[in-house]
Amino acid sequence: MHVTPQQQAEIDALRAERAETRRATVPALEDVLYQPFPVLDHGFVRVVDYMGDDAAIVQAARVSYGRGTKRSRDDQGLINYLMRNAHTSPFEMCEIKLHVKLPIFVARQWIRHRTASVNEYSARYSILDREFYVPSESQLAIQSSANAQGRGEAGVGEQLSLAPGAAAPRGARRRAAEQARRAEAKGMQESLTEDAERSFDQYDSLHAAGLARELARIGLPLSAYTQWYWKTDLHNLLHFLALRIDEHAQWEIREYARVILDLVDHWVPLTAKAFRSHRLGGARLSEEGLEAVKRLLNGEDVDPAALGMSPREWRELRATLGLPED
Amino acid sequence: MHVTPQQQAEIDALRAERAETRRATVPALEDVLYQPFPVLDHGFVRVVDYMGDDAAIVQAARVSYGRGTKRSRDDQGLINYLMRNAHTSPFEMCEIKLHVKLPIFVARQWIRHRTASVNEYSARYSILDREFYVPSESQLAIQSSANAQGRGEAGVGEQLSLAPGAAAPRGARRRAAEQARRAEAKGMQESLTEDAERSFDQYDSLHAAGLARELARIGLPLSAYTQWYWKTDLHNLLHFLALRIDEHAQWEIREYARVILDLVDHWVPLTAKAFRSHRLGGARLSEEGLEAVKRLLNGEDVDPAALGMSPREWRELRATLGLPED
Amino acid sequence: MHVTPQQQAEIDALRAERAETRRATVPALEDVLYQPFPVLDHGFVRVVDYMGDDAAIVQAARVSYGRGTKRSRDDQGLINYLMRNAHTSPFEMCEIKLHVKLPIFVARQWIRHRTASVNEYSARYSILDREFYVPSESQLAIQSSANAQGRGEAGVGEQLSLAPGAAAPRGARRRAAEQARRAEAKGMQESLTEDAERSFDQYDSLHAAGLARELARIGLPLSAYTQWYWKTDLHNLLHFLALRIDEHAQWEIREYARVILDLVDHWVPLTAKAFRSHRLGGARLSEEGLEAVKRLLNGEDVDPAALGMSPREWRELRATLGLPED
Amino acid sequence: MHVTPQQQAEIDALRAERAETRRATVPALEDVLYQPFPVLDHGFVRVVDYMGDDAAIVQAARVSYGRGTKRSRDDQGLINYLMRNAHTSPFEMCEIKLHVKLPIFVARQWIRHRTASVNEYSARYSILDREFYVPSESQLAIQSSANAQGRGEAGVGEQLSLAPGAAAPRGARRRAAEQARRAEAKGMQESLTEDAERSFDQYDSLHAAGLARELARIGLPLSAYTQWYWKTDLHNLLHFLALRIDEHAQWEIREYARVILDLVDHWVPLTAKAFRSHRLGGARLSEEGLEAVKRLLNGEDVDPAALGMSPREWRELRATLGLPED
Repeated sequence: MHVTPQQQAEIDALRAERAETRRATVPALEDVLYQPFPVLDHGFVRVVDYMGDDAAIVQAARVSYGRGTKRSRDDQGLINYLMRNAHTSPFEMCEIKLHVKLPIFVARQWIRHRTASVNEYSARYSILDREFYVPSESQLAIQSSANAQGRGEAGVGEQLSLAPGAAAPRGARRRAAEQARRAEAKGMQESLTEDAERSFDQYDSLHAAGLARELARIGLPLSAYTQWYWKTDLHNLLHFLALRIDEHAQWEIREYARVILDLVDHWVPLTAKAFRSHRLGGARLSEEGLEAVKRLLNGEDVDPAALGMSPREWRELRATLGLPED
Repeated sequence: MHVTPQQQAEIDALRAERAETRRATVPALEDVLYQPFPVLDHGFVRVVDYMGDDAAIVQAARVSYGRGTKRSRDDQGLINYLMRNAHTSPFEMCEIKLHVKLPIFVARQWIRHRTASVNEYSARYSILDREFYVPSESQLAIQSSANAQGRGEAGVGEQLSLAPGAAAPRGARRRAAEQARRAEAKGMQESLTEDAERSFDQYDSLHAAGLARELARIGLPLSAYTQWYWKTDLHNLLHFLALRIDEHAQWEIREYARVILDLVDHWVPLTAKAFRSHRLGGARLSEEGLEAVKRLLNGEDVDPAALGMSPREWRELRATLGLPED
Repeated sequence: MHVTPQQQAEIDALRAERAETRRATVPALEDVLYQPFPVLDHGFVRVVDYMGDDAAIVQAARVSYGRGTKRSRDDQGLINYLMRNAHTSPFEMCEIKLHVKLPIFVARQWIRHRTASVNEYSARYSILDREFYVPSESQLAIQSSANAQGRGEAGVGEQLSLAPGAAAPRGARRRAAEQARRAEAKGMQESLTEDAERSFDQYDSLHAAGLARELARIGLPLSAYTQWYWKTDLHNLLHFLALRIDEHAQWEIREYARVILDLVDHWVPLTAKAFRSHRLGGARLSEEGLEAVKRLLNGEDVDPAALGMSPREWRELRATLGLPED
Repeated sequence: MHVTPQQQAEIDALRAERAETRRATVPALEDVLYQPFPVLDHGFVRVVDYMGDDAAIVQAARVSYGRGTKRSRDDQGLINYLMRNAHTSPFEMCEIKLHVKLPIFVARQWIRHRTASVNEYSARYSILDREFYVPSESQLAIQSSANAQGRGEAGVGEQLSLAPGAAAPRGARRRAAEQARRAEAKGMQESLTEDAERSFDQYDSLHAAGLARELARIGLPLSAYTQWYWKTDLHNLLHFLALRIDEHAQWEIREYARVILDLVDHWVPLTAKAFRSHRLGGARLSEEGLEAVKRLLNGEDVDPAALGMSPREWRELRATLGLPED
């Protein structure tokens, strides 16, 4: 369950309140304020407070007395410029506070971003709810190498491991493989569930036997859910998103990043647009990579080794440029 | 001039706007939002935005779904507890953004507080207004040792250091000394003003001669005014205030801190109260100092050297405890 | 096992190397460089690198060209002064890098200190060793309220909370209680061990079945060991120690803090002394608390409520001052 | 004068000392340890201490017990990989401490980098030496638009903006223009020098008249020299260098960055190489820019507007790719 009925009631009560303010206000974000957006099987993200908007970034960049310009086209141009040239301080002028419920192993990756404020629910003093993350069958299937006989989507390294000309299984054989894959994923799910249930049973009984909470919880699994208030500024939030939306990040934290980016779209649409174009999309070319591109554009042959590029760099560059493998 | 009529008009326009919000809102701070509060001869502080209130601190400390408690007495108790025990993270959940106009030498002390975001008016690209800080006659008199009839120590705390029964100069002699002091302070004022005017003249003519702004400004004095947007969380703001309200801080930055603390009173009154009691007031005793206090309370004689206290520490401890000098 | 023979061999090889340097060097710390100091059942702390010494702090405070003074008495005085007056930046001039092996639940508390650099062993890409923390029987006994003959409070400070004259169970009854306590603690130990073993078994089999490591590990317990390189400056290290040596911290992290403080004694003995006296020892009095002390020293009666102190604050103050309960 | 003979003597004494250490040591950096490298007319940079080397980065990335690999080719590959993929934490494991003497206006730009520790010489308590920065004639000439025959644009990049075929003034006319330019630069130099001298005269006389140092100094120019100890980790140092070596940075701070990068070459040559290739060199393409490159490589015509690129972005992209203007 993502939130209990009682928690939802508290949230609804809060959402019903209104106050008048002179501050910069973003109606599109107000609409979803306090609402929990589900992530994974029991987690959520909800915006608890925010400060600033796109205009505040423009205002800060100009150190002006009033609001930003009234013409959003000018604002977009300035925000693009700031993003492109790594003028990051104006983006620090906006702040957001989230309430997040997430598995502990995700929390451990998340907390590596140090430029944020955190208040976490304490398992030293409070009882943890019996809630833990169990990956879906399809996640387990995708992430399991045994299953990787051929679905195009598949897991992290799968495509790379398929030799160019490999014949993918078809027809009956394919269906059988699919079934085996499902059965195995189901088995994994059950195993993870049982083990977590058993650890929570132990937690309950140690606690019932009078062991301090801070010790009783050490047997709980990394999949147990925790929750926290997490507050950061927009610049650091975008940095977090850039790293955690990336396909190298673990799928579970990417799910949180995906939901948060959607909230950023509501909050600061001009900045979100610039971010997608200049940080999420596109590519960074090394000095050698840029030199190679110049030569290619000039119609020259390129010898990557002569430029000082490793075979891996060269392969990555060609992929980036949409060129066929060498 | 603290703000120009045009700037005031922009501020008034902003103050006239209202929006509806679901966010935590503090009417007492809304009342003064955007308003410049004068500091020194041309400076100001104004609140440009804020996030959170006393209840948000309670809410974060409890990682709860709704607002804090409705009973402010309980909130005060919890906030006192957090303050007393250095549980600082809930205070990080509130954020404030200030627009500050301040002399450069004050800005240089201010920026030493690193946990904040800053956007400063750029003298590389923009022309600086001809505004610079000139200390008042009384400030110059207080800070000038000559006025202290040659007591080399003098300085900020001069008046304070006059022991209750000290024979202060009286009557005619006193008036004459006072006059000399004023005359000298006036001379210093004129000297500082003339020199700053001359440097601004040079700035103008170098600029007129086509020198890049970033170079033309290097002759400007440290007393020239700059301005910035400065944003920080409540925990770091209180830390800033604790250090900058302290009597060891330079008088000019203390003036800014004094005005900001007043704004904090408007914003988070429960926290401001706890801060005054547990951080601004009171004292920190060292292990040896505490031991000395225990012995004094027990009616014993105390030999500071035997306890490992230096004469200076002992003197400071007696002053802290309101005991007469040894 | 704290380190494997192969790891010890790598460490020994490193310890055998010597180089000549012009940098500030601390022989007492060099003596123990790279050596793992055991903590808990499988953990350790070892110093991997360091920068600066007590003299570097003095040198930074003076922004001087050469070393600090040659007279350590002067250095101690200055360092005490810096510590007493919260002039923290000179302490930031020393840096230390530790390699720490620690249970994940300890790591989660540790990482809350954000002003440090961390490289953690990755369970996404690497296999975790089958090592987990199991509290000793005596820890479990101390932390279990059942052992306290049903006193719900119990916990860490149990023994301390025995009032001087309290009638402790004696003789045969005591021995029986003690035996029961041991038996229960042993049962808890076995339960924690079994559950962790089972989770590691699952981890192995999920991994063997081809599940990605990043998912296979989510069932592992919070007691599993991880390890990291952790680097911080002396100021932030002392702040960490002040919070984590405190009796409110969980016993397990206090064990790490205790060992690190011992290493700080080797590294910067003057600073360590000042730290014990001005930060670890002694006390902070609130404005009201200080007022109460002044009155007590003046022989007056004190009405805590009239001063605005809660009963709890008053009780804590009396304890701090070594006064009997009211 | 960059350092006084007495300061040099202190430095020499320090350089003459040697100690034995087990720590990672970099002979090429030891060679220049403590030596001041002149920057501008009176400034310098000198390395006062350091921690770690290229191998420490590898070691941290692997969380290993011994040193990094012995094969520097593997280390280079790993370091390139870390740099390319923004895995920044291993670079945080190296630390450097610099002693820098620099004009205040440069210090104000420098301090904007917050992730560093600073101890600055205090003009509140100490007398500042009569030293201030006066730009060289050639700097003033380059930065002065008058020299560009009235072309308002001018500034830093003046020479660059001469279009390939532009008719530059020749012969006698050119020599006359050159002479006028020099005369004007000389005049600016004299003006800056006189004004600064006068401000220092005032500083001396206010101080002699007994005004507190903290007030006497407010008339000093932004060109006055200050000095500080500045300590940061390698990751943040590289970020500082990337921003401050950039041609958009003011020439004076670029001079400091240039000297520091040279010291980084001594310290961590593999990292310095990766930094030049992946951060200093090369380019970041936006999503639209990358799409344009793909089309160009595919031999297609590109309509920048249709791709959503502004004329400015398109112009910048063509310049980056070495293509002629549209």
